[in-house]
Amino acid sequence: MYDLVIIGGGPGGLTAGIYAQRAGLKTVLIEKEFLGGQIAVSDVIENYPGFPTISGPGLMEKFEAHARGLGLEIRFDTVLSVVSDGRVKLLKTTEGELAAKTVIVSTGAKPKRLDVPGERELTGKGVSYCATCDGPFFRNKEVMVVGGGDTAVKEAIYLSKLASKVHIVHRRDKFRAEKVLVDKMENTPNMVFHKGCVLREIKSGGGTILGGGIVTGAVLEELTADDASIGKKSAAEILYEKETLKEVAVEGVFIFVGINPTTDFVDVEKDDGGFIKTNQNMETSVPGVYAIGDCRVTPLRQVSTAVGDGAIAAHRASVYIESLG
Amino acid sequence: MYDLVIIGGGPGGLTAGIYAQRAGLKTVLIEKEFLGGQIAVSDVIENYPGFPTISGPGLMEKFEAHARGLGLEIRFDTVLSVVSDGRVKLLKTTEGELAAKTVIVSTGAKPKRLDVPGERELTGKGVSYCATCDGPFFRNKEVMVVGGGDTAVKEAIYLSKLASKVHIVHRRDKFRAEKVLVDKMENTPNMVFHKGCVLREIKSGGGTILGGGIVTGAVLEELTADDASIGKKSAAEILYEKETLKEVAVEGVFIFVGINPTTDFVDVEKDDGGFIKTNQNMETSVPGVYAIGDCRVTPLRQVSTAVGDGAIAAHRASVYIESLG
Repeated sequence: MYDLVIIGGGPGGLTAGIYAQRAGLKTVLIEKEFLGGQIAVSDVIENYPGFPTISGPGLMEKFEAHARGLGLEIRFDTVLSVVSDGRVKLLKTTEGELAAKTVIVSTGAKPKRLDVPGERELTGKGVSYCATCDGPFFRNKEVMVVGGGDTAVKEAIYLSKLASKVHIVHRRDKFRAEKVLVDKMENTPNMVFHKGCVLREIKSGGGTILGGGIVTGAVLEELTADDASIGKKSAAEILYEKETLKEVAVEGVFIFVGINPTTDFVDVEKDDGGFIKTNQNMETSVPGVYAIGDCRVTPLRQVSTAVGDGAIAAHRASVYIESLG
Repeated sequence: MYDLVIIGGGPGGLTAGIYAQRAGLKTVLIEKEFLGGQIAVSDVIENYPGFPTISGPGLMEKFEAHARGLGLEIRFDTVLSVVSDGRVKLLKTTEGELAAKTVIVSTGAKPKRLDVPGERELTGKGVSYCATCDGPFFRNKEVMVVGGGDTAVKEAIYLSKLASKVHIVHRRDKFRAEKVLVDKMENTPNMVFHKGCVLREIKSGGGTILGGGIVTGAVLEELTADDASIGKKSAAEILYEKETLKEVAVEGVFIFVGINPTTDFVDVEKDDGGFIKTNQNMETSVPGVYAIGDCRVTPLRQVSTAVGDGAIAAHRASVYIESLG
């Protein structure tokens, strides 16, 4: 029986591991893919205090070394379900079963798809959700970035150093990203702005999607003032006859339009988006189950905040275990 | 008019500064003593992820360099009052006045006194609240540490490397500190444990306090099972005739029994201890005024958590300023 199982090895999970080890809890961290989570596929991070600039993987290696240095057990496996049997939490994984007194869910969140024609079929063939992973394939080629938040703008800037030209498509007139990022992007010479536009289709190879091949272009629709609602129309409602459609020749399309949490496997209270609800103690609706970082309802999703969450959850788990006697 | 005034330059305040600069807010951080706060007087910190072991001042220098590198304005001054005039916050300082759209309070918390005879008079003459600051004065001498939490145990371990012997006095049988710290302390050879004891008086020079001089000893009272309530008695109730009193010859007394927040200057909702109440957005009862780190009601007071708080507060301040239009 473990004192604590941490599900997910991003910055929050690794921090919880550091605190749990220091608190003397018998702990295992279970990660299904690779340590570091979304930040491990980020080019650069400049707002984790203490490191003015560092690569995502570089920072996560430091977190991992810190946690392993304290003796944290890390296992690669997938948790399929968590059931709370009062004082004991039972976890089913691909490899077997585990029992623990407490569980910290730090499974993060995954990129959202737009669900436009071509997107799914061409993923990995020109459609990407990770500039750091796939950017280098588009050296000296034209690419498109879809989105207006921090991630979209950050990744557009990153891609501008590799691609010959970056087209950025955003539904609104104003970017939601941090001002420092927007300023930087606007001063990037090889950036083309398509504001008030939405992506309608991704074209490939011989002009048809079913023919396979790789990305050759993207169809955008320009929204007019009356079209405010159009941004929410589904792909099925695309009006090809509209004069507001235009095709841009690009070989890569990078989509950064939000995230979905990975929380299906655990039955605790969540919001409509599937994000786990917690109080300031990171406690969920089930005693002994905590949620931290990107997978919970939180005002901000950053390494800094995941770290704070992880410290609190491990501390509260320790207090809870003592209360069990 | 500033967008944001950050009051206090500890880890939370510096993080808020980093995020505010990146968000393009016109910001000033006001610090009344020295940057880094309580952590800057800590010998070593081993639970801020990314730095397995680093000195408190060393880590805070990195935070400062990070914030200054982004152009954060830092001013040394004392804020005397904050008044919210609806959309504008007016701050009086020793040096003058300031106006801002938002304020982040990150003033931290200060050590509590025991208020036993000798304590106040002998502060700086053998009584201390900071082992890193004063420990080196007691090389090869006997010292006493009072308290049972993380700070007390951590500082006792630190002092054991300097002092010939460390007496640790704790009211209860069990230490509240992290297990890893307690284990470490219990394996320290020159540590003497006085569990179930309270400090009643600190003796000096010629045996009388009024005579001045330096610390020569400390009077402890051993609590019996029936004495559970005695720990809460005031100094005035000391029973010198009790047989349970003993004097220990020490030249230094280090007191780590809790903290008081520095929040008198701002009129927002607080708990009985003076800690500022916030929601998960770090919002206080006054719109546009945020509180972060040790000075707020929070489940844990760590660099890790102050950093998370600071990121959130700066982000929320930015959102609030935009909402002002």
